[in-house]
Amino acid sequence: MNPIIKTRGSALLAAFFASAVLGSAAESATRKGPTMADVLAASQPGDWRRLDPEDTLYLDFTDGRVVIELASDFAPRHVANVKALAREHYYDGLAIVRVQDNYVVQLADPDAEKPELARKIQRAQRTLPAEFQRALDPKLPFTRLPDGDVYAREVGLSEGFPVARDRRSGKMWLVHSYGMVGAGRDNAADSGGGAELYVVIGHAPRQLDRNVTLLGRVVYGMERLSALPRGTGPMGFYDKAEQRIPIRTSRVAADLPESERTDLEIMRTGTPAFTELIESRRNRREDWFQVQAGRIEIGNVPVPVRLNSQGVR
Amino acid sequence: MNPIIKTRGSALLAAFFASAVLGSAAESATRKGPTMADVLAASQPGDWRRLDPEDTLYLDFTDGRVVIELASDFAPRHVANVKALAREHYYDGLAIVRVQDNYVVQLADPDAEKPELARKIQRAQRTLPAEFQRALDPKLPFTRLPDGDVYAREVGLSEGFPVARDRRSGKMWLVHSYGMVGAGRDNAADSGGGAELYVVIGHAPRQLDRNVTLLGRVVYGMERLSALPRGTGPMGFYDKAEQRIPIRTSRVAADLPESERTDLEIMRTGTPAFTELIESRRNRREDWFQVQAGRIEIGNVPVPVRLNSQGVR
Repeated sequence: MNPIIKTRGSALLAAFFASAVLGSAAESATRKGPTMADVLAASQPGDWRRLDPEDTLYLDFTDGRVVIELASDFAPRHVANVKALAREHYYDGLAIVRVQDNYVVQLADPDAEKPELARKIQRAQRTLPAEFQRALDPKLPFTRLPDGDVYAREVGLSEGFPVARDRRSGKMWLVHSYGMVGAGRDNAADSGGGAELYVVIGHAPRQLDRNVTLLGRVVYGMERLSALPRGTGPMGFYDKAEQRIPIRTSRVAADLPESERTDLEIMRTGTPAFTELIESRRNRREDWFQVQAGRIEIGNVPVPVRLNSQGVR
Repeated sequence: MNPIIKTRGSALLAAFFASAVLGSAAESATRKGPTMADVLAASQPGDWRRLDPEDTLYLDFTDGRVVIELASDFAPRHVANVKALAREHYYDGLAIVRVQDNYVVQLADPDAEKPELARKIQRAQRTLPAEFQRALDPKLPFTRLPDGDVYAREVGLSEGFPVARDRRSGKMWLVHSYGMVGAGRDNAADSGGGAELYVVIGHAPRQLDRNVTLLGRVVYGMERLSALPRGTGPMGFYDKAEQRIPIRTSRVAADLPESERTDLEIMRTGTPAFTELIESRRNRREDWFQVQAGRIEIGNVPVPVRLNSQGVR
């Protein structure tokens, strides 16, 4: 491993222990250590992984692609159903029908409320039992953040996904943050299933946690959703049909030939390199920073993604 | 006061005391109590205030207006300087030059780096001493949130502005969250002054707190900034001059005739009604919610704004 990362070992440990102390202690923390750019430059091939094409969903718009990594460890039935919907081409020709500022973008059948016009589902399910949380499995990857959370007892990352855990209830769950993808539902808990999807485009709406099934995360092309014109109808729905943004096609990556896949690599989050990255964000060493926070909130942890420029598998 | 609000008094107090207990305690909290819609419907004229036109800055684009409330209690020199800049029409013809996804929009002189082309400042200041934090003044309004914060000892609202306090250091400061406006700077702490402004358009980048002078908050027209095309240059700068979004004019509201002002009312945050509103967001009583968070993070507290439809002063 690169010496830049190695030399951070002891300082990193010290910073973790000091994290219970707020404010002035953090301000006096040493500046020595890598920036995120250093961590990325020093990263090794093993610090990155390719997306599993069976757990990767593409949303293709006329001007480009959004790539979603599906969270099969957390919402297995919803993930299977979203893939089944994509495989019967259910999403093709549906549209972004809602863009609410600092909240969500929503993809749906614009005619969902009209029985005679609504798109029919062939083999997939219209609705599913809720997967709001799951049993806490200590074998699932979990890189715990050291600085706590306003909403949950423990938060951290499970291979890129933001996760909360509660040992008392014995549960863990995906948490709402920028780019997270969920299955819209009506008032009944089991009224969602993935036929309508939403993506968080603003400050993490954590009040939604454990209220709706999160099933994935946008890892590429987020700006195709976040920069869309906001809807002026109630809750950000587009008033007029022509404002909607059509989905050209949606496919599971595994179903496309390799030449049509987006060859992404995502940084692993259970590695020493990623622990260094977290630390580089808790205490920013770039010259610009006058004060180091000494802390980090789950919504501010970046998970780097890169196009695999070498084209190597 | 409306009975809906009155009957919430005791339940609210209980919820505050219970706030140290996470998770299951919150889930079993009663559903009884008003929703935010109830709180707004029951609000009285005294629960609202009009913006002070001397502390209100307009950014007028060809397609509409962005309204910024200036935080003269927290950055008095920067606020005075931004007003001086607006009054000498410094911002007119400048542009949005940077839109970085999930981070900031930045307004600047595109020719700032070219001495012969850069816009000259007449009477205002180019740079000012930093106003990253200020002495904690217990006389300033402060509605403390009950659920803590990852970054600061205390957080709350000071008449609409998100604020952190630290009794140990004796300081208080504005915190970065959606819509907050700051003065861009170079590496030196005193290299900003308001000639370049940025606005947060993503998840609260709290690592910037106490590193840069925040001076206001967008209270209207946020979607004119947040939905702009993201820049594809480094740090989200627009690559090409024609991508920039020109500022037509920027004025202090007090300098415009009343007929040209945007007549906004903003909800007061130091009132019993606003405490009810916070509680309605900590524990969502809408039928859709299956689980109530029982907690709220500073970035998720809405501060309602409305157009004063009656036109009454």
